[in-house]
Amino acid sequence: MNRKLRMGMVGGGSDAFIGAIHRLAALMDNQIELVCGCFSIDPAISLSSGRSYYLPESRIYATYREMFEKEITLPEGERMDFVTIVTPNFAHFDPAMMALENGFHVVVDKPITFTLDEALQLKAKIEETGLILALTHTYSGYPAVKEARERVRRGDFGKIRKVYVEYPQGWLSTKLEDSGNAQASWRTDPKRSGKAGAMGDIGTHAHHLAEYVTGLKTTEVCAELNVFVPGRLLDDDGAALLRFENGARGVLMATQIAAGEENAIKLRVYGDKGGLEWLQHEPNTLLVKWSDRPTEIVRVGNGYMSDIAKHNTRTPGGHPEGYLEAFANIYRNFSLTVRAKMNNQTAKAEWLDFPGVEDGIRGMQFIDTVVKAGYDDTTKWVKF
Amino acid sequence: MNRKLRMGMVGGGSDAFIGAIHRLAALMDNQIELVCGCFSIDPAISLSSGRSYYLPESRIYATYREMFEKEITLPEGERMDFVTIVTPNFAHFDPAMMALENGFHVVVDKPITFTLDEALQLKAKIEETGLILALTHTYSGYPAVKEARERVRRGDFGKIRKVYVEYPQGWLSTKLEDSGNAQASWRTDPKRSGKAGAMGDIGTHAHHLAEYVTGLKTTEVCAELNVFVPGRLLDDDGAALLRFENGARGVLMATQIAAGEENAIKLRVYGDKGGLEWLQHEPNTLLVKWSDRPTEIVRVGNGYMSDIAKHNTRTPGGHPEGYLEAFANIYRNFSLTVRAKMNNQTAKAEWLDFPGVEDGIRGMQFIDTVVKAGYDDTTKWVKF
Amino acid sequence: MNRKLRMGMVGGGSDAFIGAIHRLAALMDNQIELVCGCFSIDPAISLSSGRSYYLPESRIYATYREMFEKEITLPEGERMDFVTIVTPNFAHFDPAMMALENGFHVVVDKPITFTLDEALQLKAKIEETGLILALTHTYSGYPAVKEARERVRRGDFGKIRKVYVEYPQGWLSTKLEDSGNAQASWRTDPKRSGKAGAMGDIGTHAHHLAEYVTGLKTTEVCAELNVFVPGRLLDDDGAALLRFENGARGVLMATQIAAGEENAIKLRVYGDKGGLEWLQHEPNTLLVKWSDRPTEIVRVGNGYMSDIAKHNTRTPGGHPEGYLEAFANIYRNFSLTVRAKMNNQTAKAEWLDFPGVEDGIRGMQFIDTVVKAGYDDTTKWVKF
Amino acid sequence: MNRKLRMGMVGGGSDAFIGAIHRLAALMDNQIELVCGCFSIDPAISLSSGRSYYLPESRIYATYREMFEKEITLPEGERMDFVTIVTPNFAHFDPAMMALENGFHVVVDKPITFTLDEALQLKAKIEETGLILALTHTYSGYPAVKEARERVRRGDFGKIRKVYVEYPQGWLSTKLEDSGNAQASWRTDPKRSGKAGAMGDIGTHAHHLAEYVTGLKTTEVCAELNVFVPGRLLDDDGAALLRFENGARGVLMATQIAAGEENAIKLRVYGDKGGLEWLQHEPNTLLVKWSDRPTEIVRVGNGYMSDIAKHNTRTPGGHPEGYLEAFANIYRNFSLTVRAKMNNQTAKAEWLDFPGVEDGIRGMQFIDTVVKAGYDDTTKWVKF
Repeated sequence: MNRKLRMGMVGGGSDAFIGAIHRLAALMDNQIELVCGCFSIDPAISLSSGRSYYLPESRIYATYREMFEKEITLPEGERMDFVTIVTPNFAHFDPAMMALENGFHVVVDKPITFTLDEALQLKAKIEETGLILALTHTYSGYPAVKEARERVRRGDFGKIRKVYVEYPQGWLSTKLEDSGNAQASWRTDPKRSGKAGAMGDIGTHAHHLAEYVTGLKTTEVCAELNVFVPGRLLDDDGAALLRFENGARGVLMATQIAAGEENAIKLRVYGDKGGLEWLQHEPNTLLVKWSDRPTEIVRVGNGYMSDIAKHNTRTPGGHPEGYLEAFANIYRNFSLTVRAKMNNQTAKAEWLDFPGVEDGIRGMQFIDTVVKAGYDDTTKWVKF
Repeated sequence: MNRKLRMGMVGGGSDAFIGAIHRLAALMDNQIELVCGCFSIDPAISLSSGRSYYLPESRIYATYREMFEKEITLPEGERMDFVTIVTPNFAHFDPAMMALENGFHVVVDKPITFTLDEALQLKAKIEETGLILALTHTYSGYPAVKEARERVRRGDFGKIRKVYVEYPQGWLSTKLEDSGNAQASWRTDPKRSGKAGAMGDIGTHAHHLAEYVTGLKTTEVCAELNVFVPGRLLDDDGAALLRFENGARGVLMATQIAAGEENAIKLRVYGDKGGLEWLQHEPNTLLVKWSDRPTEIVRVGNGYMSDIAKHNTRTPGGHPEGYLEAFANIYRNFSLTVRAKMNNQTAKAEWLDFPGVEDGIRGMQFIDTVVKAGYDDTTKWVKF
Repeated sequence: MNRKLRMGMVGGGSDAFIGAIHRLAALMDNQIELVCGCFSIDPAISLSSGRSYYLPESRIYATYREMFEKEITLPEGERMDFVTIVTPNFAHFDPAMMALENGFHVVVDKPITFTLDEALQLKAKIEETGLILALTHTYSGYPAVKEARERVRRGDFGKIRKVYVEYPQGWLSTKLEDSGNAQASWRTDPKRSGKAGAMGDIGTHAHHLAEYVTGLKTTEVCAELNVFVPGRLLDDDGAALLRFENGARGVLMATQIAAGEENAIKLRVYGDKGGLEWLQHEPNTLLVKWSDRPTEIVRVGNGYMSDIAKHNTRTPGGHPEGYLEAFANIYRNFSLTVRAKMNNQTAKAEWLDFPGVEDGIRGMQFIDTVVKAGYDDTTKWVKF
Repeated sequence: MNRKLRMGMVGGGSDAFIGAIHRLAALMDNQIELVCGCFSIDPAISLSSGRSYYLPESRIYATYREMFEKEITLPEGERMDFVTIVTPNFAHFDPAMMALENGFHVVVDKPITFTLDEALQLKAKIEETGLILALTHTYSGYPAVKEARERVRRGDFGKIRKVYVEYPQGWLSTKLEDSGNAQASWRTDPKRSGKAGAMGDIGTHAHHLAEYVTGLKTTEVCAELNVFVPGRLLDDDGAALLRFENGARGVLMATQIAAGEENAIKLRVYGDKGGLEWLQHEPNTLLVKWSDRPTEIVRVGNGYMSDIAKHNTRTPGGHPEGYLEAFANIYRNFSLTVRAKMNNQTAKAEWLDFPGVEDGIRGMQFIDTVVKAGYDDTTKWVKF
């Protein structure tokens, strides 16, 4: 198959934030082209958005139902190969299921669905169809994060004992949802966001990052969730003590009321031999720590990096890559895997390294567990 | 009174760590002189240590009991004015009480005593005698920490909502107490250290720092304490969710098994208007954060600092002060207060800004509370 | 014109470094598509490269001469609109001139040409044709750099007095050109790189950054160039004292033998009221310094940034952008300008903010001046 | 000799900056006591200062001449052993020579004298008398700087090629000397400071640091000195290209008009195998860089440090030491050397590691050379 993969979109109109990110990430590597979309619940916005993306009007749809119905009638190679879903959480499941039922691969923003049950249904459909689903837990796309995972996996740090993961933001320190801010509005609305606020929006990222790097599953959670801004309907802050399957212990902090913080997701992991630290604000650096010798500043793009990190790096050392490249790594690995499937080839292990439906289910379980634990003053530990 | 204050010591022989720190801190400002001491439980070590500190043999004692008995017979101005106690925790109370009973002021290392009850007895004796006690919670001696407290106090950040305090160390990642290391040996021994390990040694510092800067009292604790190194008798790791009296929430992390970490005590506080961050490894910097404008790098020694920070600073901006100067601030403020008392003067507010018996009691309550909470899998919140 | 701009390439085969960067940068914003190219001096590599970029064979050319001849015969909207030239320095001029003569706009890597005279010829041709040329001085594409320039321009720092610009790399610490490394090979070869080595490759970037941010022209240079690695034919290190037109003074350091450095280009500028600091390794941060108040950490993506920075930013605060996005800003502004021209519209000021032929001429003058000054032990100052 | 060394002072009244620093540094280690002084040219200030240092009035002198005359009549063990001279530069030589003539060891602030000739006279007198002189080039007292020197010395980085040393300050960005600021006043006055301003005050520190760490002598200088603040009488800014005896090249930058900078002296050294970086604002960290593996964060207080660094460290890793401890290291090594001499013992190599008269002469040569080069627009290189 010597052509680019063909992407459709659900959501991502010109008034949206994350849709633009998905396009940047999908397109930069010259492996994917945008061919169609239903970019908004408002057909006029969908149309104007599609035009601004240089699409023919025939491929700009008023509803995603229409999109799937029409695209499926187009010949292979002309119709889209996969769909990217970038709507608010409550509107993930329906188009994702419809895509799978119509034979399209799926990229969907996190959290995967509105409820755990929906996620389980998607899993069943994926197993039934053999289609591929990518979930954009962006932070696991950074090469330094992949390097961290690889070094844990190969045992550099010994047995993992302690995990600190934190995700402080400050943008919801005031009741921004009352000011007409679209991002704040749906994220703080239980009808569109789900049962969790900060924990669903960013806590899931933190939890995914911790499990991704350590390779360990959380088994129990002790948590408190808080609503600091009066009148807000969902948690805007929370913290959890975590227990992992191997006996490791963790602390997870996620907040959107840490005034003055941007998006400072940070992970620290310690084993009995050493530890690591990664902070997204300086994403190309991985600090590797040792009890008996100096901390090392491991830097993306250098020759000493592991193969998996190199596979996910585009520039030489000292040419900083960022959030968009991490995002693009998910698209690139997804597209390599889809392409392999379409060519009846076996995907390489490094191509398969992107979050999928299992990660989505873990995320929904995390939301369920942390919400259950977070408002209960008597039950200390809730099983995952 | 135109002379230096005269200091005696209990503990602090030439084989000890913290005793040397106390001498450096006490002496650098030319306000205090060392005049006597019982520097070790071993009289030979006490003698050789005292000689190396250039003391006459007549003032080097074999027991602290002897020291108090003899010193009290010397004329005022020759005898010591106060005693510094730098023995392991179990041996704080007895010499401290004896000092107070004999009319000597006291400096004592933290935690103040072995049990809460002992601390309460000291408090009663202090109230009875009017003598002065300083507790060396060093980190509150840093000028940037005092600046932080001042800015919180005057309301720069609005109502405080969130506190993160962490104290990661890695030096007990292995069973160092089996190797003959004296520091590790007593700190992991319940008979000498008390009922807590890491939480007593460094958790108390973290807790003190949080309460000192925010001016808020902890009311409830949800915690887990862990022993990671097999065979160890006390916690070497722990984390706690904190509730504060004004409704603020906190997370406290203290560990001695974070392999590769040195002594990275760090505090973050967020109010509804902004926040602050301080890390001991760069102690002269206070990051001040705002929702709507850039983070400021507030630096010790500059003209814009508050009076309380300036009072605790010795050098101009860009001449880094460190741990010893923070320690010395406790001694300097203590000595100014003692001197005022001896001169029947009223101590200024900034002189009184050093930790005392009330801080010591808070610390013992913290240990009791966090130990009670930390091993109980069913009770979630324990009142302070 | 409702279509993407159509890009051809000269150079940039699958074995090249900077060509891949150009494609990533050009394509990510969904405003440009790659339609043709002569990707290598080796027709087989050109063909295989073009195929891997999903081009039809009819648009993959064996020589750039052939490309221009054939493309010009295609109808507007099918033929390329502009050409990107990413060959070694000695092979910039000929395809650039040929492009201009055939009516194509040009993007060319820096330094613009092999000699100053060639650059002047390009300028004359551009003035004659009205075509548009962009020069990829990447570092001026960073939003934080544009913020810096804007703040200098509007006088925040008062009169500029001092400029420090440095560009340390370490990758040529050994004679890498003997090992078959293609990058090292042509960059150290006077026949392909020109009369300067490090000063041409990275010194020009540093010089451009200094003039771009300050808005000041260098007038005199005092320099020393060095060849540290035995047998190397061009400078691998150098430093220069700079005099600027307003009386400001500067120091420029560029080296490729600073073992262990990656690509740490850094700029500091000081006026009589304050100063700024920017380092590419943390490119989303601009430190803004003041004599009488704390340094501010100005961060890309925040609401307080200037309009010009916002125009060049794709993600919200805390989602780090990197080298590729800075590069893409040059392409985006170039494409907006070209598109305006094709639509007979007036380009906005922020669209015109990309390096062009004048910057290229300054760069060639810098090379001439610093090489003249750099090996002369008797003449101290050389006029620019 | 079982007593503390006895220090007298010339200068260092309660209105002075550097005198207080000297006392803190001298006293903290409990090896030195202050016994006498002439603390000001104003006898009343000298008296009140001496009282505030708890000296008997009999040992507080109105002139340093009187001090030397009287002290010499006191018995050994009561009279001072050495004198610390902390007057402005023009008043270093006379008391230093008088001290040596009367048999007292000397500590003197830098630059050692007002002229090179005076420094040479001191050297001759020292050789004649065998007395010991320490010069407080503070930055060479930091343990991380000593670690740097040791690693260069033992060849870790191979042959040294490149040295960058910079010392940016901003406090003289305005004409502070007109505001009554005592520090600014004498430092910008050629009659009290000497022929150089910034270069004498801080350039000498930078130069000393570069030669100290590399072990290389500067042989030639190409420089420009500037006076940016109108009406100022001495340079407030300058930069120099340096040539070292082994063929290494350097850049030295010293400025006092970098608005917003505090005291950011920084050194970078690169050899053919690796390099190092040290910045005084984070003085306990030494970055060690390698071409082929990660940069290491070498931290003072850890077990892996060299013996010479450990000898100059008081606290364990993670307990930051600062400027005063670096300063105190000079006093401690000086006092160990003096004590050895008084005891007719051989001083250990690590005791002798403090700046002395030879360093002072190098500093005066540096001032002479850089001033000669700095205002000459025709002579490029001036021999050292």
